[in-house]
Amino acid sequence: MIQKLIAQIAAKKAPIVIGLDPQLSFIPQRILDASIQQSGETLESVAGAIYAFNKAILDATADLVPAVKPQIAMYEQYGIPGLMAYKKTIDYAHQKGLVVIGDIKRGDIGSTSEAYAKGHLGTVKVGGKVIAPFEEDFATVNPYLGYDGVKPFIDVCRECDKGIFVLVKTSNPSSGEFQDRRIDGEVPLYEWVGEKVEVWGEDLREGQYSNVGAVIGATYPEMGRQLRRKMPHTFILVPGYGAQGGKGKDLVGFFDDDGMGAIVNSSRGIIAAYKQEAYAKYGEENFADAARAAVLDMQEDIQGAIGRRFCS
Amino acid sequence: MIQKLIAQIAAKKAPIVIGLDPQLSFIPQRILDASIQQSGETLESVAGAIYAFNKAILDATADLVPAVKPQIAMYEQYGIPGLMAYKKTIDYAHQKGLVVIGDIKRGDIGSTSEAYAKGHLGTVKVGGKVIAPFEEDFATVNPYLGYDGVKPFIDVCRECDKGIFVLVKTSNPSSGEFQDRRIDGEVPLYEWVGEKVEVWGEDLREGQYSNVGAVIGATYPEMGRQLRRKMPHTFILVPGYGAQGGKGKDLVGFFDDDGMGAIVNSSRGIIAAYKQEAYAKYGEENFADAARAAVLDMQEDIQGAIGRRFCS
Repeated sequence: MIQKLIAQIAAKKAPIVIGLDPQLSFIPQRILDASIQQSGETLESVAGAIYAFNKAILDATADLVPAVKPQIAMYEQYGIPGLMAYKKTIDYAHQKGLVVIGDIKRGDIGSTSEAYAKGHLGTVKVGGKVIAPFEEDFATVNPYLGYDGVKPFIDVCRECDKGIFVLVKTSNPSSGEFQDRRIDGEVPLYEWVGEKVEVWGEDLREGQYSNVGAVIGATYPEMGRQLRRKMPHTFILVPGYGAQGGKGKDLVGFFDDDGMGAIVNSSRGIIAAYKQEAYAKYGEENFADAARAAVLDMQEDIQGAIGRRFCS
Repeated sequence: MIQKLIAQIAAKKAPIVIGLDPQLSFIPQRILDASIQQSGETLESVAGAIYAFNKAILDATADLVPAVKPQIAMYEQYGIPGLMAYKKTIDYAHQKGLVVIGDIKRGDIGSTSEAYAKGHLGTVKVGGKVIAPFEEDFATVNPYLGYDGVKPFIDVCRECDKGIFVLVKTSNPSSGEFQDRRIDGEVPLYEWVGEKVEVWGEDLREGQYSNVGAVIGATYPEMGRQLRRKMPHTFILVPGYGAQGGKGKDLVGFFDDDGMGAIVNSSRGIIAAYKQEAYAKYGEENFADAARAAVLDMQEDIQGAIGRRFCS
């Protein structure tokens, strides 16, 4: 699966993933009102509005990017109907030929992680029938429970040609509270986790990179640079660009010498672009066009930063 | 909410929570077949069978225990229909007067954790209407992202009188891989996290205990004993009893001098009791009676261990 992602990045010259994290405040009132008029003040209405919003964003941007990353929390927040919109979003993104990274950050003990892995990346059996419940291509995974919480995901990746990105150094301000603490007086925890991730992925390499990747926040460029060197076979998913503060020039160190090895996520910076001064001219009505313009600007920003090294 | 849990533990003399983690192999074939006959080889059939199974377990045991802990992965594995069974299980447990601990192990950056917190423990607004999507009473939370990933849960606990249990030392074999590493050459990570949890919960105390609790595995009794002392206001959710190897005598140290301060989870040891030699006489048909017998035995085992100190 990592090869598919890499091929699409190269084809579109865009190591960019759009984070489909639709907060209600991003969705134009017109869409929400129409949905409420149809289904009342219900979770179904919100879910309908979220899906309509995502669909418009996908229609306007799918030719520019290799992948999308729906953040399941933003759907789960609206209960079962919200999760139905999550699933519909995955299916529509696939229709559009995009790779889907499910930002689920799951992680549990063995048999429980196995259930998450099968439900999101793999299949379950019902009688004689094999069903893929969510069908993301990649999922993000939390490593706090150690290897036996991650292994079931790795097993499913192997069986079903899927991938994961393990949280190593997250983009949020307090990520250092535990992740930066020095382990046994030596390396920080995030580095320790990163080294493990590199090892866990050894058997799942497709060319230079493994289907076992890492999440490292754009907001910590020095750590990204250092981890890029320590994890030469680990593809990096980089959240935190844009609204969280990361800029193209901060991202150079996340990429390898060929301008590969990382994919940068932007969520509100793209899907709610119309709320920014730079894209205000599009107006709420043309939020999807604003999103497209923001993707093009992000592409230029990143290509400008890693430009001469970008593998096309 | 922690006071409600404590009152129910005292009333039922049972610091026991039943883990509703229905693996398909636990569900009698008759129930699954009936469901498939009705809805075909679909996720809906599995979900129907899971709910029928849970309902029978709840009917047979609700008078004995204060709480149940559905493990959302076992439902999420079966996609949207599975999650509908999760929600129905929560609602039915509430009907039976039980406290519901959602074992969701969520944790993300600020606004995303907020979405999880609202969706599971709090409410969302749709137009003028306030809706509680999942409505668990407690949720488990992963601390790897640090305080700003946990705070949104704490805020919702404060607003809605709910509670959380933060993963401190998990019950699985590889939990030590990161959790046991010494931080800055001093305390192990789990202890560092535990100390933070005690502080995070300061403002949410109801009597001796806080609505911010901790998860500490029964499989690590010495660490439980030590953390009990270091976290005098933190209620402990103890998984890993029974099938994972923990016994009543291992649990003494998790409780305070009044025999309070902890609640012990057993999942397959109860819900799949009929598969054990000790309860084989019940047969598959009477799986719910076997579960009831297993709860009574667990109650005796734990009371025997903490007996003289049990607060009733």
